[in-house]
Amino acid sequence: MVIIMEVNANDLQIKNVIEQIHLKGLKPHISTGEERTIIGVIGDDRKLQEANFKTLPGVENVFRILKPYKLVSREFKRDSTIIHINGVSIGNGHRVVIAGPCAVESGEQILKSAQIVKSYGANILRGGAFKPRTNPYTFQGLGIDGLKLLQKAKQETGLPIVTEVLEASDVELVSEYADILQIGTRNMQNYQLLKAAGRIRKPILLKRGMSATLQEFLMSAEYILSEGNQQVILCERGIRTFVEYTRNTLDLNIVPVIKKLSHLPVIVDPSHGTGRTDIIIPMSLASLAAGADGLMVEVHPEPEKSVSDADQTLSPAQFGELMEKTKKLINIFN
Amino acid sequence: MVIIMEVNANDLQIKNVIEQIHLKGLKPHISTGEERTIIGVIGDDRKLQEANFKTLPGVENVFRILKPYKLVSREFKRDSTIIHINGVSIGNGHRVVIAGPCAVESGEQILKSAQIVKSYGANILRGGAFKPRTNPYTFQGLGIDGLKLLQKAKQETGLPIVTEVLEASDVELVSEYADILQIGTRNMQNYQLLKAAGRIRKPILLKRGMSATLQEFLMSAEYILSEGNQQVILCERGIRTFVEYTRNTLDLNIVPVIKKLSHLPVIVDPSHGTGRTDIIIPMSLASLAAGADGLMVEVHPEPEKSVSDADQTLSPAQFGELMEKTKKLINIFN
Amino acid sequence: MVIIMEVNANDLQIKNVIEQIHLKGLKPHISTGEERTIIGVIGDDRKLQEANFKTLPGVENVFRILKPYKLVSREFKRDSTIIHINGVSIGNGHRVVIAGPCAVESGEQILKSAQIVKSYGANILRGGAFKPRTNPYTFQGLGIDGLKLLQKAKQETGLPIVTEVLEASDVELVSEYADILQIGTRNMQNYQLLKAAGRIRKPILLKRGMSATLQEFLMSAEYILSEGNQQVILCERGIRTFVEYTRNTLDLNIVPVIKKLSHLPVIVDPSHGTGRTDIIIPMSLASLAAGADGLMVEVHPEPEKSVSDADQTLSPAQFGELMEKTKKLINIFN
Amino acid sequence: MVIIMEVNANDLQIKNVIEQIHLKGLKPHISTGEERTIIGVIGDDRKLQEANFKTLPGVENVFRILKPYKLVSREFKRDSTIIHINGVSIGNGHRVVIAGPCAVESGEQILKSAQIVKSYGANILRGGAFKPRTNPYTFQGLGIDGLKLLQKAKQETGLPIVTEVLEASDVELVSEYADILQIGTRNMQNYQLLKAAGRIRKPILLKRGMSATLQEFLMSAEYILSEGNQQVILCERGIRTFVEYTRNTLDLNIVPVIKKLSHLPVIVDPSHGTGRTDIIIPMSLASLAAGADGLMVEVHPEPEKSVSDADQTLSPAQFGELMEKTKKLINIFN
Repeated sequence: MVIIMEVNANDLQIKNVIEQIHLKGLKPHISTGEERTIIGVIGDDRKLQEANFKTLPGVENVFRILKPYKLVSREFKRDSTIIHINGVSIGNGHRVVIAGPCAVESGEQILKSAQIVKSYGANILRGGAFKPRTNPYTFQGLGIDGLKLLQKAKQETGLPIVTEVLEASDVELVSEYADILQIGTRNMQNYQLLKAAGRIRKPILLKRGMSATLQEFLMSAEYILSEGNQQVILCERGIRTFVEYTRNTLDLNIVPVIKKLSHLPVIVDPSHGTGRTDIIIPMSLASLAAGADGLMVEVHPEPEKSVSDADQTLSPAQFGELMEKTKKLINIFN
Repeated sequence: MVIIMEVNANDLQIKNVIEQIHLKGLKPHISTGEERTIIGVIGDDRKLQEANFKTLPGVENVFRILKPYKLVSREFKRDSTIIHINGVSIGNGHRVVIAGPCAVESGEQILKSAQIVKSYGANILRGGAFKPRTNPYTFQGLGIDGLKLLQKAKQETGLPIVTEVLEASDVELVSEYADILQIGTRNMQNYQLLKAAGRIRKPILLKRGMSATLQEFLMSAEYILSEGNQQVILCERGIRTFVEYTRNTLDLNIVPVIKKLSHLPVIVDPSHGTGRTDIIIPMSLASLAAGADGLMVEVHPEPEKSVSDADQTLSPAQFGELMEKTKKLINIFN
Repeated sequence: MVIIMEVNANDLQIKNVIEQIHLKGLKPHISTGEERTIIGVIGDDRKLQEANFKTLPGVENVFRILKPYKLVSREFKRDSTIIHINGVSIGNGHRVVIAGPCAVESGEQILKSAQIVKSYGANILRGGAFKPRTNPYTFQGLGIDGLKLLQKAKQETGLPIVTEVLEASDVELVSEYADILQIGTRNMQNYQLLKAAGRIRKPILLKRGMSATLQEFLMSAEYILSEGNQQVILCERGIRTFVEYTRNTLDLNIVPVIKKLSHLPVIVDPSHGTGRTDIIIPMSLASLAAGADGLMVEVHPEPEKSVSDADQTLSPAQFGELMEKTKKLINIFN
Repeated sequence: MVIIMEVNANDLQIKNVIEQIHLKGLKPHISTGEERTIIGVIGDDRKLQEANFKTLPGVENVFRILKPYKLVSREFKRDSTIIHINGVSIGNGHRVVIAGPCAVESGEQILKSAQIVKSYGANILRGGAFKPRTNPYTFQGLGIDGLKLLQKAKQETGLPIVTEVLEASDVELVSEYADILQIGTRNMQNYQLLKAAGRIRKPILLKRGMSATLQEFLMSAEYILSEGNQQVILCERGIRTFVEYTRNTLDLNIVPVIKKLSHLPVIVDPSHGTGRTDIIIPMSLASLAAGADGLMVEVHPEPEKSVSDADQTLSPAQFGELMEKTKKLINIFN
């Protein structure tokens, strides 16, 4: 942390800042310039809060140099993390396609979906059993029955399963059925859920919050890692901006930026990220070109009958087109 | 719902849309124009999803006329809701000031805070026992001990207590101590928590999510009301925008807009909304002038020693100034 | 400027940074810590660009301490600027209401508007003769004829006139008719226009760009002052955010923040800022409570017949209500 | 336009709406439902304003069906526009790379830059002679001298030139030197400049405004086309959002969306769009994968000495890497 004193800060104010640094068990490094004094903090300042120094009299500004996250950073672990799930690998050049319907609706629907996903060569099946719905009067998911239907689809096709968990007390239950547990965008800062997810030993797919900064996103992953679970897949899924022609603004810029800062794999969800079936294919290709380790897309045997997200779901034919183009693109990286 | 067909939509496509409406148990109203056909849906279309119609062939656009919320709306209940807590009333011209530290830190700190709050004439004490922190390595609150310290402060001063609850399984516990349960911005769409809050019979202070639309905010309140708890206080606390001179962008515009649409009381939190001590007073006055039913502000006996949010916390003297100006302003409305 | 070197920066990299500072005619101040070296720049670093240092090898981060604006700052001029126009004063406690139609449509319309504005006690008449329209096929304003009609309305009522100028080559012409020249939101960074406005000796009303940061807004004012025109009125008029219930998000937070940093008067335009007639009155009161030096609102004899902005224009009766409440509120500040 | 009347709208209110439609020379189509009346407007409603109907008594909402732009739309011209400049083609599968320094600094610098651009196989040279700078005290460009230096670089290398024009009165002058005239992000809604650009017969590169909606962007292009100049290249260059890890948020989603709506070519500027040298390459590849017709990137012989935008400028070696990867990617589309 670097504390910039005001031009006219007096000795008492400078002494007070120094004292506060000592009180936190850290060491100050004073640099007296012609115009102003700058005080550096020596030692691990992760526990300090800028705010406590900004409010001291005579302080003009406070800059943090150390990042507040540690376990998720490339400084802590230089090599890219690879996550292995039933023979599927994600990360460090291993790219995956996760696909399936928004929600598990029936045994027939999820099985058909799984067969489509498998037949076109995708790697993992997605499907929601517990659904976080904005509207209390709409379909909230099949719950445990949905988990069981996913399990059957897995048995039939061999595809690993990713499904969402909504609260800490459900983590154990969902982890009995799922190969990857998804924490959704609305729960990215549900810290009780993150901690519970950190205590199991299955991979967690953590979706970025709708207005999460990069640091908040990585700090939420840090919660999971700090509890002992190192298997986190980050997922960009669009942010809230003024833009109205897409449901969210898919922010692909975060992909190469995370790659620099963190060793964790990053995938992209262009279905939620755009909310528009008609641009999922180009935005999927763009995601991979930006360096993403995979895609998560919605596909449904009959999109127009989907109980949710019908306007961002691919038909089987569209999904086939996506997979074909995806393979072509991935080839040039190898 | 109004479904606008494309200019060149054919009869089969129109028939298909009509069939889909019938399948949902509703009635279509067809209007054949010179250029295009417009199909209205007659009946309660709250359960329909625009997406299911937008994806049908030949459909250009779908507009919803009915709002998806009901219990929170002024159409459902014309008179403004007044919430009564131990002799304090909120709503319909009854304005309150809720104040206290960000977090309960110690018995002495919360008691001193309560005395300050009371001495300047504010109505309700705030203080966090369970803290949702971005950083897993920082202070997470005193938990149950914090709740007990709040209870003591209440016994000494008579001030009702508002404190945050972080997960569904804690709702019962927190409601034993708190007069009002706060659901924080990061949990505005934690639907399990909203449902649990809907099953108790204490007022809920629901903070707007950082990037929540008006409809999402009201739908989250609807979750609580739909479970039987009618006592919800809405709280604007700033949104995420490109602006960098305030921590969040306090969006006062939502206050008069909610007043038109909903009967629920609305308060404003300029501490979190701006993140800047130096503009809390003018923004508090602006909040009341915009029509808010109250304020929630952070005050601490010694702000620079606050374990969190030091840069948005008023000192006792600043709080005194706020209360004096607030009273002057409220007078002109009465 | 403070340059933070990386932990493992070597001597050559440090020397290079020092050399670059000397090359720009400034002096470095080196502070060698245990972990890293921090280099301060002594002297007026306004001409330096952070980017040139950020890209040097071994540099981790660069912070600017001096603000890039000077003439508009309170450090340069401590006392609040008061602008005088034909007996009307703006700034430092002198509050004004500027009102009138969006566009000058006819002699009758602008004269009627002026009479309404005057009869309710507002101070200045607004009306557009040159209109910046998103749509090339809609009404673009009456041009010089509009300016002449404004002049007549001024002669009849004695109200000073504010009207928009769209390009540098029109500044002379418009300044012959107008008492205050408005530079609109779309032109806030039209630097040719700003410079031309800086060369005349009439007050300039500068509207904030739709996505302007505070610094960009003040730098645009600096352009005008740096050319010799000290009479600038800043105007907040709403920013672009994800919010959809108001046309723009009126950002009142900027009002008290500008008051701290700049001596220039600040007014608020809740008509464009919200785009909703039904909340103009509460947001006007909130603007004044936040510390604004005045309001600019749209009023039209028959809003529903207005050629533009009909949904954000007050009727004469609504304007009367606004003026009455405004006076009540202003009284408590005096 | 479709006008939805309120449930309890009375006959007088309905009559009034119908009258207003007739007054504008259009025909109403009334559809009387069980619950409410819906009135369609028959004919070209581009000249109507929603606002004039929204404010009529008894009207609940107004939806526009026709888009306000015409000449830029695919409905008007189905085939993708191809723009030809000195043997270089842009659009409909013809992809280009435009590269060069932010600003023309000297004859040597621009010539060296042009040689680098040419040697790696890019198609067009960029360089600013007139610079729109936020700060009045920084370098504002070499002006006409800069144009002459660009001309020399063109003579030496054969590369066509794109350079920015800042005001309407300079359009003639700049078009004598430039092969493509650039209208910058701050001027996207400088309608005088757009009209002047529409009156010449050279291609215009129109950059998206920092917070421009899709419709505003296309309407600005419509201004140019409506004056007779059909050669417009649209350029996405990042938008303003809450995100802080990139200077702007490059919004690639707009690329496939524009492709659906408009026949005009679309390119992407990842230099300004991200402001970060270290992610320009992946974001360039992503742009092309999303369907862009080309790239515009900043390259400088010695980026750290660049007078502007040093932190978003590629070095010659980085540019070489970009061009190599770009060619590989483009190949799979052909």
